[in-house]
Amino acid sequence: MRDTSFAHLPDPPYYAVIFSSRRALGDAGYGAMGERMVTLAQKQAGFLGVESTRDAEGFGITVSYWTDEASIRAWKNHAEHRIAQETGMQDWYQHYETRVAKVERAYSLK
Amino acid sequence: MRDTSFAHLPDPPYYAVIFSSRRALGDAGYGAMGERMVTLAQKQAGFLGVESTRDAEGFGITVSYWTDEASIRAWKNHAEHRIAQETGMQDWYQHYETRVAKVERAYSLK
Repeated sequence: MRDTSFAHLPDPPYYAVIFSSRRALGDAGYGAMGERMVTLAQKQAGFLGVESTRDAEGFGITVSYWTDEASIRAWKNHAEHRIAQETGMQDWYQHYETRVAKVERAYSLK
Repeated sequence: MRDTSFAHLPDPPYYAVIFSSRRALGDAGYGAMGERMVTLAQKQAGFLGVESTRDAEGFGITVSYWTDEASIRAWKNHAEHRIAQETGMQDWYQHYETRVAKVERAYSLK
């Protein structure tokens, strides 16, 4: 059975947005908005896939994959996503880091 | 107090190794070897930092950061790390994906 936590991507090159975050206490709408954002991201031009995990202490890493930088910029500026980003800054995260990177090679456990 | 889960990195460009994995059941020496590998990685030339998290279902993402690709290759070929990689393939992971990427820009929640 396919493990759906892994993104199934084309051969490089493509782009990655590495988002690491520490959650603040309480949900404050985070769960529902998070699901909505994943659904919405999947509909954007250039979206390739996403992998995401968070430990019991609230430290998480989400990596979304995109065909090109223009797609990343368009998603960053998407109206509904902007609202989520602002709420994230105010309510959901104690801290986060975002890094945009060009994936040059990839290999996997066969 | 500084949140030590986050890597404190210089301004881009630098390189990232994105390692996503599903753990197999049981420890089989994984915990001790994982700690040893982090300690060892930190001593390698070109190592900048690492962020790592794993959820209760065993899906994890570790991103290590490096100054350049030569440092990544040297670490991949490090003798003790090679043994860990082989054990990982055999015993620790059901599946993993490794992606090497050049970080071009970064921003954070202030």
